[in-house]
Amino acid sequence: MAGWGWARAVRGLLLDVSGVLYDSGADGGVPIAGSAEAVRRIKASGLKLQLCTNETQATRENFVRKLRAMGFDVSVAEVTAPAPAACRLLKERGLRPHLLVHDDLIPEFAEIDKTNPNCVVLGDAAENFTYANLNKAFQLLIGMEKPVLISLGKGRYYKETDGLKLDVGAYMKALEYACDIQAEVVGKPAKRFFESALAELGVPPEQAIMIGDDIVSDVGGAQQCGMRALQVRTGKYRPSDENHPEVKPDAYVNNLAEAVDIILQQL
Amino acid sequence: MAGWGWARAVRGLLLDVSGVLYDSGADGGVPIAGSAEAVRRIKASGLKLQLCTNETQATRENFVRKLRAMGFDVSVAEVTAPAPAACRLLKERGLRPHLLVHDDLIPEFAEIDKTNPNCVVLGDAAENFTYANLNKAFQLLIGMEKPVLISLGKGRYYKETDGLKLDVGAYMKALEYACDIQAEVVGKPAKRFFESALAELGVPPEQAIMIGDDIVSDVGGAQQCGMRALQVRTGKYRPSDENHPEVKPDAYVNNLAEAVDIILQQL
Repeated sequence: MAGWGWARAVRGLLLDVSGVLYDSGADGGVPIAGSAEAVRRIKASGLKLQLCTNETQATRENFVRKLRAMGFDVSVAEVTAPAPAACRLLKERGLRPHLLVHDDLIPEFAEIDKTNPNCVVLGDAAENFTYANLNKAFQLLIGMEKPVLISLGKGRYYKETDGLKLDVGAYMKALEYACDIQAEVVGKPAKRFFESALAELGVPPEQAIMIGDDIVSDVGGAQQCGMRALQVRTGKYRPSDENHPEVKPDAYVNNLAEAVDIILQQL
Repeated sequence: MAGWGWARAVRGLLLDVSGVLYDSGADGGVPIAGSAEAVRRIKASGLKLQLCTNETQATRENFVRKLRAMGFDVSVAEVTAPAPAACRLLKERGLRPHLLVHDDLIPEFAEIDKTNPNCVVLGDAAENFTYANLNKAFQLLIGMEKPVLISLGKGRYYKETDGLKLDVGAYMKALEYACDIQAEVVGKPAKRFFESALAELGVPPEQAIMIGDDIVSDVGGAQQCGMRALQVRTGKYRPSDENHPEVKPDAYVNNLAEAVDIILQQL
C-alpha cells in the first residue's frame, strides 16, 4: 500500500484500549469487530505489543480480567497504565505518596512506602472525592516546602450510564490553584508516560507505532515522543478530527483490524 | 511614624473579618487579641467603618450575632458580604440559581426564584462539597447552552483553628476547567464588590484604607480600586507574602490593633 514505507521498520505496537479494542458501555463493554483477532495476529507475527491506557479505576489485574473475558489474549505485563508508571516515578525520586485515588486502585501502590508523605498522588477517586479527603490532600501539599502533586491523567469529565462525571483533571485544577503549583501528569498525553510504555515494549520510538482513537492524547502525544501514530475510525473518533488544527496522524485506518492488515503487509 | 503621611486623609476603614478580627474554627472562632478594642477605638475616633468580608458560611444576621458574642461592636448594616451582592446581580439579570452553598447561607437567597435553574451560584459550601453535589452543579452547567457560574469569592484557602481549608476558589477552578468556562466572581477581589463596600462606607477610595490578611484578595483588590491597603501579620498571613511578585501593601502591621494605633496618630 502506498505511503506506508515507514512501517517496514516497525518492531512493536502500542495500542489504546477503550475505543480500539472495545467500546465501553452499560454492560461493561463490547469488543470492536476484528480487534481480538487482530491482537492474535500481532502476536503471531513476532511484533511486540503493549496496551497504553489512562484507566485508573481498577488495578491492571482486574482490567485484564475484563479484557480476557471479551476474548483478548493479553496479560498484565502488557498493560501500561498510569498507576504503575506513577509507582516507578515515586521510587526513582524517593517519593512517599499520600493517595487520593479510587479504592479499587489502591492495591497498585501496595509496595510503595506511604509513611510520612512527601507528595500527593491524585487519581479518578470518584466517591472518594469528599470534602474531607480533598482538604487532607490540600493540607499535606500546602505544608510541604516544595509541594509535589502527581495526577493520574488530566481528563475534564467522562460519561457514565447515569450521566457525565467530573474526571481527575477537575480536582487536579482545584489543588493546583489552592497551592499555586503545577501538577505532574502521569498518563497520556505526557511524554514520560509514552516513554514508560516504550520501555515496557522494549522498542525505540522510531520502531514503534501508536494506534488510538483520541487525536490529541493518543496521536499527538505519541508523535511528540518520536513515534508514528495512526488514528482508528472507531471509539471517540469523529470526522472533524481529520481537520484537527494541530495534530495529523501518519495515517487513518477504519479500525484496528485494518491497521494490522496493512502493517503486516509491509514486513 | 515615617511613611504613613498618606493616612492623614483617611475618613473610613474597610476591615476584612476572618484573620483580622478573629480566627475562625469549628468551635466558632477566637478573637484576635486587641481587635475588639481596636474596633471601639475606630468608632470613637469618628472614622467610618465597614466590614468587607467574603464570608459565605452564614447569613449576615448570624455572622454579626457571632461577632457581637465575641465582643465586637458591629451591626448588620456595617457588613458587606457576597451573598446580598449576588442576589442583586441575579435580580438584575433575571437569573434563577442552583445553589451550591453552605446550608446556613441559604436564607440569604429566600426571595430569589430558584425553579428551573439557568445558572449556578457557588459559595464556600464546606461539608456540602460532596462528590455528588459537585457533579450535580457540573451537570447543570455543562447542560446549559451558555453556562453561567457565579462564584462568591475566589479564595484559595482560609485558616480555621484546626488547620487550613480549601476555599470556594478551588471548587470554582474545578468547574471552570471541566466546563471550559470563566466564572463571574462576586466578592473580594472583584472591583464591583469593593465599590459596593465603599458606597456603604460612604467614603471615596482615596480616603479609605483596607485592612486584611489576604495579600491578593484584600490588599491587591483594594489597591486596584484606588484604595490604600495594609496587610496584617495575623490570620492566613505567611512570611512569603512579603515577597509577593505582584502585590505590595502600602504598609505591614502586626495586627489590627497596631494598624489603628498608627492610623489614629496621623489624624
